[in-house]
Amino acid sequence: MKNNLKLPLRGIIPPLVTPLLENGELDIEGLEKLVDHVISGGVHGIFILGTTGEFSGLSKNLKTELIEKTCNLVKNKVPVLVGISDCSFAESVSLAHKAANYGADAVVLVPPFYFSASQVELLAYLKKMVKQLPLPLFLYNIPVHTKVEFSPATVKAVAELPGVVGIKDSSFNLAYIKQIQYLLRGKDDFTYLVGPEQFMAEFILTGGHGGVTGGANMFPKLYVELYNAASNHEMEKIQTLQQKVMQISTLIYQVGQFNSSYLKGLKCALSVMGICNDTLTEPFEKFNPPERKKIEQALKEINYKALL
Amino acid sequence: MKNNLKLPLRGIIPPLVTPLLENGELDIEGLEKLVDHVISGGVHGIFILGTTGEFSGLSKNLKTELIEKTCNLVKNKVPVLVGISDCSFAESVSLAHKAANYGADAVVLVPPFYFSASQVELLAYLKKMVKQLPLPLFLYNIPVHTKVEFSPATVKAVAELPGVVGIKDSSFNLAYIKQIQYLLRGKDDFTYLVGPEQFMAEFILTGGHGGVTGGANMFPKLYVELYNAASNHEMEKIQTLQQKVMQISTLIYQVGQFNSSYLKGLKCALSVMGICNDTLTEPFEKFNPPERKKIEQALKEINYKALL
Amino acid sequence: MKNNLKLPLRGIIPPLVTPLLENGELDIEGLEKLVDHVISGGVHGIFILGTTGEFSGLSKNLKTELIEKTCNLVKNKVPVLVGISDCSFAESVSLAHKAANYGADAVVLVPPFYFSASQVELLAYLKKMVKQLPLPLFLYNIPVHTKVEFSPATVKAVAELPGVVGIKDSSFNLAYIKQIQYLLRGKDDFTYLVGPEQFMAEFILTGGHGGVTGGANMFPKLYVELYNAASNHEMEKIQTLQQKVMQISTLIYQVGQFNSSYLKGLKCALSVMGICNDTLTEPFEKFNPPERKKIEQALKEINYKALL
Amino acid sequence: MKNNLKLPLRGIIPPLVTPLLENGELDIEGLEKLVDHVISGGVHGIFILGTTGEFSGLSKNLKTELIEKTCNLVKNKVPVLVGISDCSFAESVSLAHKAANYGADAVVLVPPFYFSASQVELLAYLKKMVKQLPLPLFLYNIPVHTKVEFSPATVKAVAELPGVVGIKDSSFNLAYIKQIQYLLRGKDDFTYLVGPEQFMAEFILTGGHGGVTGGANMFPKLYVELYNAASNHEMEKIQTLQQKVMQISTLIYQVGQFNSSYLKGLKCALSVMGICNDTLTEPFEKFNPPERKKIEQALKEINYKALL
Repeated sequence: MKNNLKLPLRGIIPPLVTPLLENGELDIEGLEKLVDHVISGGVHGIFILGTTGEFSGLSKNLKTELIEKTCNLVKNKVPVLVGISDCSFAESVSLAHKAANYGADAVVLVPPFYFSASQVELLAYLKKMVKQLPLPLFLYNIPVHTKVEFSPATVKAVAELPGVVGIKDSSFNLAYIKQIQYLLRGKDDFTYLVGPEQFMAEFILTGGHGGVTGGANMFPKLYVELYNAASNHEMEKIQTLQQKVMQISTLIYQVGQFNSSYLKGLKCALSVMGICNDTLTEPFEKFNPPERKKIEQALKEINYKALL
Repeated sequence: MKNNLKLPLRGIIPPLVTPLLENGELDIEGLEKLVDHVISGGVHGIFILGTTGEFSGLSKNLKTELIEKTCNLVKNKVPVLVGISDCSFAESVSLAHKAANYGADAVVLVPPFYFSASQVELLAYLKKMVKQLPLPLFLYNIPVHTKVEFSPATVKAVAELPGVVGIKDSSFNLAYIKQIQYLLRGKDDFTYLVGPEQFMAEFILTGGHGGVTGGANMFPKLYVELYNAASNHEMEKIQTLQQKVMQISTLIYQVGQFNSSYLKGLKCALSVMGICNDTLTEPFEKFNPPERKKIEQALKEINYKALL
Repeated sequence: MKNNLKLPLRGIIPPLVTPLLENGELDIEGLEKLVDHVISGGVHGIFILGTTGEFSGLSKNLKTELIEKTCNLVKNKVPVLVGISDCSFAESVSLAHKAANYGADAVVLVPPFYFSASQVELLAYLKKMVKQLPLPLFLYNIPVHTKVEFSPATVKAVAELPGVVGIKDSSFNLAYIKQIQYLLRGKDDFTYLVGPEQFMAEFILTGGHGGVTGGANMFPKLYVELYNAASNHEMEKIQTLQQKVMQISTLIYQVGQFNSSYLKGLKCALSVMGICNDTLTEPFEKFNPPERKKIEQALKEINYKALL
Repeated sequence: MKNNLKLPLRGIIPPLVTPLLENGELDIEGLEKLVDHVISGGVHGIFILGTTGEFSGLSKNLKTELIEKTCNLVKNKVPVLVGISDCSFAESVSLAHKAANYGADAVVLVPPFYFSASQVELLAYLKKMVKQLPLPLFLYNIPVHTKVEFSPATVKAVAELPGVVGIKDSSFNLAYIKQIQYLLRGKDDFTYLVGPEQFMAEFILTGGHGGVTGGANMFPKLYVELYNAASNHEMEKIQTLQQKVMQISTLIYQVGQFNSSYLKGLKCALSVMGICNDTLTEPFEKFNPPERKKIEQALKEINYKALL
């Protein structure tokens, strides 16, 4: 297994949205703009095919195309992490090899999410998986979608396997990842990343390494600044920037009445900002004009141009 | 859309296990024996790529091969229903076309099971899906795995679309499907099937059409007999046969401490019976010798040869 | 422990609503009418302080008053079952003694519902509880409210204790109680009751003993007739009566958008029918005029006077 | 409504365990020692009848006695907060008046936890409740036990009512309370407290007011020190103290296999430390000797005497 990553991986690694054309194909121009936008904004890595990237809704062909195109666009300026989550073991391994071939730096995996496995079964699964992976692995914990979590004890056991380099936690339970950090104390190269942008700064302040924050698709500079402020323990600056982050999540992610409002709002904002198309994968559809109007107003209220 | 099905579809339609070799490839010999076994046992249809068929753990190539082989083996002796469930819309449609090409009779679909959709979103998704399907569609409700259900109101709305011909419910909540039957009263060609074998007879007694019973992989005759007894309102015979069914589910499906015991026990029993291999898809592994011993003993206690 | 019950207890045992005045006090006149109404309708028992009786929302004083008044009104015409569910063990035991003193026939208990206990802990709890009860005990399984269930293995273990005489299941999972019946096969005096009226008939057809059906507050005769039809295996009559039951549950229990619509609809209907007040315990409030209007229309559509 | 509290309330407010004798009565000597222990340790308030105080398992008489005794022992040295959570509105109000009569400073309330209410219903419930309370109210969010949460929008609406002074959140979701802080920005006297000790410091660092940390029953000084370090932004000291807190939660709260291990471990440790009895309310029982041995060893490993 090759490992180009400097560990622990630190900083802001946006979970890239997957720009799509109306007909469902990859929006290549949008992808170029988006990659350019976040790299110009100073992000420390890029994560494709995560939940925000709608991995579950994409066909295998489109995933492959996305991996190739993104790796080509990023050109090793920052590490590229590729989600290989799939209920089929063989499909996950196959994606991992594609990622390696196109030059990605690591892969990321949620537990199989249809028929829930026990921790004993997950551990055996991960041991088998790791042997077949050509790239370092990040575990990805997101029980709201997978039903099961990787328990702290499972993570501890898996962290001893060669090639398992970190965890991204989107459980919204900060005690979960702090428990894992405690169990793995001393293992200084293991990377801890959190998804929720609402408490990313708190996590960095006390030993976390980075944030996989959806909002960094829109405003990479803001999240990088917040990450830096937290790294430097600039408490007042954190407060100021965090207010902005809360304003964004409140105004952009909560339009409409469905859980998918996060995805819809984020893609709609990117569309309003002229970065990429807002088509979503089924079963979701982009916002209708009334909701789009709200996103436009929200962006004004946020005074978003000052954030670019 | 072509429709060869006589509606409503009635009887026992086993959710076929997917026989696999140790190396993960399709166990073709096992598949032949299994198809032969259930058809000889009098089943009224075959459902491949359901939960019991481990659809979620199989690669797309293996699914395609399974569809082809099964359709060839069944040779239109009974209808073949094919699971096309996938979080990717495009992959579901693609599988449906393969199913049609190989001669299957209908397709079966669970809701997207990673990022939960609302009922409004599910309805739009189904409307879009139905237009692209070459075969009749059965909805498949199994919230324990998908987190969301197709609500009765959604089913009612979808049932009006051309090509939507029935529902298979594995929610274990008998009131759910009875509510749907009530909402669709008068629509006599809509098919109602339940998964749980523990109350399949009760469901048939009061208006259900059939059972997609996992145990029919092992003992097709028993479940067909129970179905017939229920159809004929033979109350005492139902009681006798149901005791057998309860004995089977208690002794075969509950060995070990994990939820996967159902899959493991069923495949192990088929292996002990000499029908097919008991390899499972990841993240699950076949029973170890101590559990296999219990299944052997269970089969003796059931006096299984008398059931063949 | 005294036991006046003929076991197994069979028939329709309405979970009595608790009539309340606007000021929250017991609506004694309403209670008299309601008890009279259901006993005239032929019910085989009465269950007070269940979920439908809003046990959790009532003060201890009101519960005590209700037990006394109901026992006095029923005058041993039918058995009275009293819910003693409380997260405090001492309060449950205290209620049980009140029930015995006022002449009730049995007590009914859900698992402690705040801090969830394991099955091991529940079993120890029940063993300790049973020793202190002056009346026979029915277990009451309703995981939607209690989070935990009494597992079939726990029920099997508890059923061996003296004084544990049956189970009422409101899990909506018919396989659950059939699994328990199978585990306790041969124990012919153990009573099996289900809550959901949508499949009460099915349950009676294959070995169940009765229904604790909320609708029997409104239409005791209908549910008794359905029970009798099921007991006598009159399949066509079951179908006809079941359609009525489905119409009632669809039109009366699903008005408005909240889960409490069952309680609100049931009490509102009783109020429209002139039987008792429709005040509810906090945090619930009776229907506003627009919803009440819908219940009035529903009762007309049901042609409810023909059911009395 | 009287309000003696200086708002926002800041600091460590231990959720006091309820010391009990073997026979289930209040362990008065233990209570005296415990109150003395935490006040000597510098805590900023005391919270009785919370989840850690096993409110749900206590009889009303015992609750009343506990309120009286605790208020007498504390003698206004620190504010006393009293849990009044009960599924019965009348019982909650009654407890609140007892709390006021004995000199407590505030009351604390979870949502009704049996029959789940919607947010609309919860809001109406809280509006009605607040009018009848003689003391300021803290909302208590703990969905693992209550199933429902107070949504941020509900909290925002309720915070405008006179007498609603803060929230204690034990959801383990730090984004939840940060969302509420954002919605209530500018309302500087509203108090934000969290339960989980694993990220109490992070919460204080960015605007939280305090911790209702179970471990402060054992080691009040440690948690007060951690609170102070966080208030003063002493980042290295936080890290050192937090390691201790993680060691405590890992070694004391996770013995045995049940969720109740937190309660059992905490009370057992207090018993080993000679502070109070370790009897629990049903359905829970104190640790058996093997588990007690583990707690003894854990306390040694923690070198607990250095923390006193």
